Amino acid sequence: MSTPADPPSAAPVIVLVRPQLGENIGKAARAMLNFGLVEMRLVAPRDGWPNPSAGPAASGADIVLSGARVFGSVAEAVADCAHVFATTVRKRGVTKPVLTPEEAARDIRTAAGRCAILFGPERSGLETEDVALARAIVTVPINPEFGSLNLAQAVILMAYEWSKSQALAQPTLEAIDPPAPQAELEGLFGQLDTMLDATGFYHPPERTPATRRTLRTLLTKPGWSAQEIRTLRGVLSALEGKKRPRN
Amino acid sequence: MSTPADPPSAAPVIVLVRPQLGENIGKAARAMLNFGLVEMRLVAPRDGWPNPSAGPAASGADIVLSGARVFGSVAEAVADCAHVFATTVRKRGVTKPVLTPEEAARDIRTAAGRCAILFGPERSGLETEDVALARAIVTVPINPEFGSLNLAQAVILMAYEWSKSQALAQPTLEAIDPPAPQAELEGLFGQLDTMLDATGFYHPPERTPATRRTLRTLLTKPGWSAQEIRTLRGVLSALEGKKRPRN
Repeated sequence: MSTPADPPSAAPVIVLVRPQLGENIGKAARAMLNFGLVEMRLVAPRDGWPNPSAGPAASGADIVLSGARVFGSVAEAVADCAHVFATTVRKRGVTKPVLTPEEAARDIRTAAGRCAILFGPERSGLETEDVALARAIVTVPINPEFGSLNLAQAVILMAYEWSKSQALAQPTLEAIDPPAPQAELEGLFGQLDTMLDATGFYHPPERTPATRRTLRTLLTKPGWSAQEIRTLRGVLSALEGKKRPRN
Repeated sequence: MSTPADPPSAAPVIVLVRPQLGENIGKAARAMLNFGLVEMRLVAPRDGWPNPSAGPAASGADIVLSGARVFGSVAEAVADCAHVFATTVRKRGVTKPVLTPEEAARDIRTAAGRCAILFGPERSGLETEDVALARAIVTVPINPEFGSLNLAQAVILMAYEWSKSQALAQPTLEAIDPPAPQAELEGLFGQLDTMLDATGFYHPPERTPATRRTLRTLLTKPGWSAQEIRTLRGVLSALEGKKRPRN
């Protein structure tokens, strides 16, 4: 349980998913630091890391770049995060809450546990698989006839809203358990997935990816706490036929 | 003064004062159009106008560039405007109201008469003489240890706030499924409960009510939709060994 002694959640982690140009990574770093965000994570940057084009574009936001960590997948990048937000402009056919940057910033500000915000590659944006990992979608309300936000602009709008929400300076703590780190949710999903696979649930094969995505979305929605995840894993183990230890 | 009888003012004019690089003029145009602003005015652009570097940087926001008008002084550029706002990060020793972008956007939204927002040259920002023409100063609250907003970023934050203030009248409805009727949730719980009972999960008996309550709380938390409940019942049936019908 969260208690009044718990600190409010820290600043969100900015996760650039498969960024293409080092220059844009640098610009994103600059955008972040302008509003006090310092933790950047990179998922499979196209040109590797470090990237010599990033530094000059960061205009002095070196602390962000030097601390950036690289991951092979989105799941690894957000494994320690309790809340994952995916920025995307397109409707994805996924049934997740759609928030404005302002609403997302408010959620982040009051959330217990670490938050991550995903930003997709410059050209294509986040893939459906990336979005499936997130609890909510963040969409900037933009001119429907000219939507042309670049990566650093999307980052700066989120960072700006986060900074604004912080300035409101009202540390409202939720008195509920924070959602479990994403890795624990993945553990639950993996266990269920293995069990279902054995039953022939994923039939026909061509529908398997969509079915998996649906289930992942279902299980991501609740924001279960670590304790709740443990309980559910116990449920699955019972259904699987493994006996629980009886003191 | 604005009165209830006044019509709301039109979109503000964006005035770039002595901009240096054509590329930045183009980026500012792109930033504007993303949030529905189309009227740009240029005061003594360093490299003249039109500038061949502007178009490529505008990424298609040509309507803004082609309509841009050039003036020799700030006074001429804002001659038809009733309200002039000057964006600046530095204290200028001028006794004018200092607004956040959000506050300025609200003022613009409710003001009678045309509004203009001044943005200074890339390197130096607005001069004291320019600021003197404005009724209020707009300052983006920024990281005091790293203030490095470029011209297009300052423009996009103002355009974004203006767009937000305009959108307040039209609340965006979330297009997500409502939670299923409680009876359907009970159906899911009942199915799981029966399955778990058969496995010996509810042991020892004296703890059964508490365990049931915990599970019910867990399953109530998500607010799953009717479709999601159906999917989960399919999952349970699969785990129970009932085959799903295969067309």
